[in-house]
Amino acid sequence: MDIKLVKDILEANDVVARGIREKLEQSGTVMINVMGSPGSGKTSLIAKTIEGMGETHRIGVIEGDICTSIDAERLARYHIPVVQINTEPFGGECHLPAPAVGKALESFDLSSCDLLFVENVGNLVCPAEFEIGEAAKVVVLSLPEGDDKPLKYPLMFRESRAMVISKIDLGPHIDTNIGKLTGNAHLVNPGLDIFLLSAREGTGLEAWFAWLEGVLRSKG
Amino acid sequence: MDIKLVKDILEANDVVARGIREKLEQSGTVMINVMGSPGSGKTSLIAKTIEGMGETHRIGVIEGDICTSIDAERLARYHIPVVQINTEPFGGECHLPAPAVGKALESFDLSSCDLLFVENVGNLVCPAEFEIGEAAKVVVLSLPEGDDKPLKYPLMFRESRAMVISKIDLGPHIDTNIGKLTGNAHLVNPGLDIFLLSAREGTGLEAWFAWLEGVLRSKG
Repeated sequence: MDIKLVKDILEANDVVARGIREKLEQSGTVMINVMGSPGSGKTSLIAKTIEGMGETHRIGVIEGDICTSIDAERLARYHIPVVQINTEPFGGECHLPAPAVGKALESFDLSSCDLLFVENVGNLVCPAEFEIGEAAKVVVLSLPEGDDKPLKYPLMFRESRAMVISKIDLGPHIDTNIGKLTGNAHLVNPGLDIFLLSAREGTGLEAWFAWLEGVLRSKG
Repeated sequence: MDIKLVKDILEANDVVARGIREKLEQSGTVMINVMGSPGSGKTSLIAKTIEGMGETHRIGVIEGDICTSIDAERLARYHIPVVQINTEPFGGECHLPAPAVGKALESFDLSSCDLLFVENVGNLVCPAEFEIGEAAKVVVLSLPEGDDKPLKYPLMFRESRAMVISKIDLGPHIDTNIGKLTGNAHLVNPGLDIFLLSAREGTGLEAWFAWLEGVLRSKG
């Protein structure tokens, strides 16, 4: 009965996600679902992307958090459209369900937004199960989280089209083996595109921007 | 209807948790529920605790993961009882529910186990909602995760009796403000006991051991 119910919830979610996808296709907006653990560097990645691509693209952000608008306030400094979703009124949900994203989209003028980031709730597990109508899912994994994570949390890496390994400047101070990490990620998903970067030092961003340009050109 | 169902699931879980608590009280076993994000350092904390307290206490571990037995194998090297729970056969659950813990307990000779660690699935959100009959919940937060996490994921910090801030050796290389982090944690839960340590450098462990001794003396 539990399994049946979970199936129903996921199916209902997917129906809404399909509607969102159609709406975004009509407006020509590419939506990227950014997922990863708390503190993996999702907001920093989006901030650096706005800095690097905000002059040539019209970027918007939907911020998903259980509580607070800390991240939304941080990104609003860039004077771009930012909408905050707090899941606490809905029981502190551990992921963004498609209906919450659909509701947030009502606040956007999609016709003037080319690239829309959704920063999901910090969680390497649950968000991967919920389609939100995105063009692509991206997982952000910070180097200190360790090289075994793709094996231990495979769904996230299987569902994602790209993995951003963040905080690589910490490499000399920790034991994570980057070769092992990328190898484990490709074991789970051989087609995963991988980027290594440090938002703090500003390194590795160009390859990430080029990948996004490719997704934008192909409209997903 | 959704909310009603979630309530039913949590209530059913709590009934099982109460049974587990009674069983542990009878055997005089203190069970600690160790929670935190993927890669926060939960396994390292348990490993260092076995090294520091394993000669004077009979320690056991239940390892909760979606997939793999990487952590269980790492801890089995200490020649202590370790039971692995994989949640993948149950839909890749993002937390350990009480029935899974109850099942794992059947594999333990509880009469010869004083201190039992349960390493929950790596997730700063969902595990906090599920009682498992533990004497105390402990959240492990690694310094690179950032100082705003107690505000953004308050339930975990509200439910926990202690917070272990791990990887403090990375302090000089990152922007996390420890004073702000502990302040935010105490805003959410004024009674939270806080420990700062580095498993890598072996610092800060004595205060953590002393806290565990106190929990053991009071049997929870």
